[in-house]
Amino acid sequence: MTKKASHPLKENIRNLKGCLHGGLIKESSEKYGIPEKDILDFSANLNPFGTPFDHPEYGLDYTKLAADALKESVNYPDNRYLELRNAAAKFLNQKNITAENIIPGNGSTEIIRLFCQCVLNEGDKVIIPYPTFGEYEIQCRLQNADIVYIPTESVYDLTEEELSAAKIIFICNPNNPTAVLRKRSDLLKLAEKCARAKTVLFMDEAFIELSNPEESLCDMAAENDYVFVMRSLTKCFALPGIRLGFGVASKNIADALNQARLSWNLSPLQEKTGAAFLSMPGGVNSDYLQNSRKMILREAIYLKDELSKIWGFEPGVVTTNYLLIDISKRTLNSSELAERFARHGILIRDCISFKGLDTDFIRIAVRTRDENRRFVQTVSKVFDEWAKEFAENELQNTLAKHKKGSRQNERETCEYYPCHFDGQDCTFCYCPFYPCIDERTGGTYVHSTKRNGKIWSCTDCYIPHMTEVVEKMLDGLMEDGDTEGLLKKEWLEIIVPILEERDSNKILMCCRKIRTEKIKSADKN
Amino acid sequence: MTKKASHPLKENIRNLKGCLHGGLIKESSEKYGIPEKDILDFSANLNPFGTPFDHPEYGLDYTKLAADALKESVNYPDNRYLELRNAAAKFLNQKNITAENIIPGNGSTEIIRLFCQCVLNEGDKVIIPYPTFGEYEIQCRLQNADIVYIPTESVYDLTEEELSAAKIIFICNPNNPTAVLRKRSDLLKLAEKCARAKTVLFMDEAFIELSNPEESLCDMAAENDYVFVMRSLTKCFALPGIRLGFGVASKNIADALNQARLSWNLSPLQEKTGAAFLSMPGGVNSDYLQNSRKMILREAIYLKDELSKIWGFEPGVVTTNYLLIDISKRTLNSSELAERFARHGILIRDCISFKGLDTDFIRIAVRTRDENRRFVQTVSKVFDEWAKEFAENELQNTLAKHKKGSRQNERETCEYYPCHFDGQDCTFCYCPFYPCIDERTGGTYVHSTKRNGKIWSCTDCYIPHMTEVVEKMLDGLMEDGDTEGLLKKEWLEIIVPILEERDSNKILMCCRKIRTEKIKSADKN
Repeated sequence: MTKKASHPLKENIRNLKGCLHGGLIKESSEKYGIPEKDILDFSANLNPFGTPFDHPEYGLDYTKLAADALKESVNYPDNRYLELRNAAAKFLNQKNITAENIIPGNGSTEIIRLFCQCVLNEGDKVIIPYPTFGEYEIQCRLQNADIVYIPTESVYDLTEEELSAAKIIFICNPNNPTAVLRKRSDLLKLAEKCARAKTVLFMDEAFIELSNPEESLCDMAAENDYVFVMRSLTKCFALPGIRLGFGVASKNIADALNQARLSWNLSPLQEKTGAAFLSMPGGVNSDYLQNSRKMILREAIYLKDELSKIWGFEPGVVTTNYLLIDISKRTLNSSELAERFARHGILIRDCISFKGLDTDFIRIAVRTRDENRRFVQTVSKVFDEWAKEFAENELQNTLAKHKKGSRQNERETCEYYPCHFDGQDCTFCYCPFYPCIDERTGGTYVHSTKRNGKIWSCTDCYIPHMTEVVEKMLDGLMEDGDTEGLLKKEWLEIIVPILEERDSNKILMCCRKIRTEKIKSADKN
Repeated sequence: MTKKASHPLKENIRNLKGCLHGGLIKESSEKYGIPEKDILDFSANLNPFGTPFDHPEYGLDYTKLAADALKESVNYPDNRYLELRNAAAKFLNQKNITAENIIPGNGSTEIIRLFCQCVLNEGDKVIIPYPTFGEYEIQCRLQNADIVYIPTESVYDLTEEELSAAKIIFICNPNNPTAVLRKRSDLLKLAEKCARAKTVLFMDEAFIELSNPEESLCDMAAENDYVFVMRSLTKCFALPGIRLGFGVASKNIADALNQARLSWNLSPLQEKTGAAFLSMPGGVNSDYLQNSRKMILREAIYLKDELSKIWGFEPGVVTTNYLLIDISKRTLNSSELAERFARHGILIRDCISFKGLDTDFIRIAVRTRDENRRFVQTVSKVFDEWAKEFAENELQNTLAKHKKGSRQNERETCEYYPCHFDGQDCTFCYCPFYPCIDERTGGTYVHSTKRNGKIWSCTDCYIPHMTEVVEKMLDGLMEDGDTEGLLKKEWLEIIVPILEERDSNKILMCCRKIRTEKIKSADKN
């Protein structure tokens, strides 16, 4: 027996942290003081087409299902769950899949946990290609397995020997959060390699119905102990609160997992709702799912197009109902961005918890056109606010340094120096008047294809970088009063006179001189 | 890493069989061709008072809960489950218990599984006093723990050293299936010993609300890492299909288990229904639960009284909503009895799967008066049918032996010989005419307090044990025709003439002679 510690928990449990997920509507509502109904959730990836109950044309009636479920709930569920398992087998529409190949789950995470519990001994190796869904890691850690991480790109480069050292390799297809969809033809080759290596290829196909079900390996799972397929109903039927998923496996594996799962892991409402969803004519190609895929494709392209126009917002591939966005070029990181969106009542998925993505990525769900439009508009708002706050902070820092008498010019370490002219004063790196929208400064609106419209450019304004101006401004800003009020006063008393040439002719002449020299130099080149 | 076998499953999973439970209504309906609605389930132990929804006076509205749950189900549940956890803490009505001490579960079996997964390493010892609920064993086996069984009676005799060798000891209170309720005062002493031994006292209190909640240890669990309490909502609120239970633990342990449990183990419907049940004013002493306990006590006493009148039916203690019945004196075993009850549309719990009970016990739920009465009546029917079939089988065996020419008298090995008279012919050990209800044979009705009425006694009939009669009967029964028809013919042609003294005077005289001698011998004594 293992030695007793000062507490009864296993060592690997003691400091375990549950997996981070999106969809924290209630928590965000409490944190930001926004009513739940006003929160728009782009952080959880649900079918934007709505639940089948939202479409009367598909003939499903929740009220009746709920009433029938109550009648059945006065007895223990029949834990064979044949109604659901038969419906799932039919839904997949593969000749070799029957109810005997199906393991029902209280959400797909229960399937991941059950599989790990049935396969992994302490210290067994598993391969997790990253970045990917975090539940594989947590469920493997619960089994105290030894996790080997590899970049998702190198999955097909794994040798049979490398595979053989592991009990399971987890592949999410399409991958969450990258949305990369692997081809069945490539996966079949991997499956062959896995079978030879006696390593289970665990295929998480939670989003495949919203992507391309033709790439599924479920038929392989039915007849191969070394392919296991997991499906989810909560994403594709837009009802995460119902908690439903299932596994597809060979009869041997499914039998064992059905013995090992909780005696009654599903309620009658779960079974009935799931069976109703899965039994819509056409299965994975039901009208409901085909219409869902069409809508998702259209909206994902809209979102990608619109977001691509924003500088430093680089959406990844369009394959399913979410987009990964690279924001590494922005100064703002993913956590700050998520926080700022949340204050506007929009939740996005900060990818900080995905190994390999750090704070450089966010993931957003594809939603309806109106919602997607609201998202795009909010991006501009969020960045404008951020820029304003950033400038304010910079100003406060500058003033603080001035107070301490330690005003330093940080030119030496700035990669952008000189952004305006040689010898410029960098105290106000960010102009506290931005955007002043006064073309007499030399500033002007320029058209930005990347930023969805026009942008105020200060390239040709040198005023806040002239040492005389800087010193006057600092002195003024050190007076009593709120910064905004002082800035207004300074604009009127320091900048406007320069622009109107009533005063400080020397400064203005200097600016003109710099401009003229720059133009000449450009002409020469 | 563990060595790879010819399949990916762990060795302890390969041949694992799920726990046997009662309540197999759908399976029984299929097996016996009885509609589900006509099946009366005494095999699952539910509150016979009905669900709170069955009592409009408590003001709970399922339709509204279900509709609200659907609205919430379009988002992922808030996996802190604060509504349910707060309600559970309030329900227990202990000063030291808050939501922070509660771990919500998809049924109480999920709580057992989660606890085992968080505490048990492979090879760790656990103590399971038997007979008891089978889920502890299965969940420990999933962790590949080493199970030490001890009789329930010896729990308090365990030394600190013996306890110390184990990580967990499981106590079910009241115990399932024996219904024995342990006293809190005794358990407190055990808890102290466990804390010193660093062994978790896992208290399964699934039935305590239907028994006596004063014996609970939940307050101890809140402040002691070595007491864990599990509660179930499905039994006491009579709604097993809702799948709800919870654990009570110290903040440390509860935190860890809440991190380790499935991300979203409950649906909004589960949370809302559970919170509504647990929030009925009075908590464990709500009107609903007090009325439930009164009804259960009344009906359990009724059942015990009535069943005690049946010979070989020995009900155990009355403490909660089920009774264990010792049937070891009957020839019929628990599995045969369960099978025969099922054919009458009544399910009882065959205790064969409970270690230590073998086929000598059944467990029945306490239900409503009408249902309990139907059960008692069915006991008589089942035994009458069994006796009839048993006699028929005996007759067929006797005939088969006669055909083979190997008619043997088995007097030598019979502990009851001579049940009628010295030298009797035992070929028809069981009279094929039983009960003939003809007092001319010497048979008569006697009153049986044990058997709930009168019983036909053959003590003074010697006819089928006279060799001349036996031989005539055997010859007749060997003719072509169905046994029942042949028996009728024999009754008319062999027995009636004896009774009417038209024939076989010699036999009748002989019977009279035996009777007279017996009476004289009795007079002498």
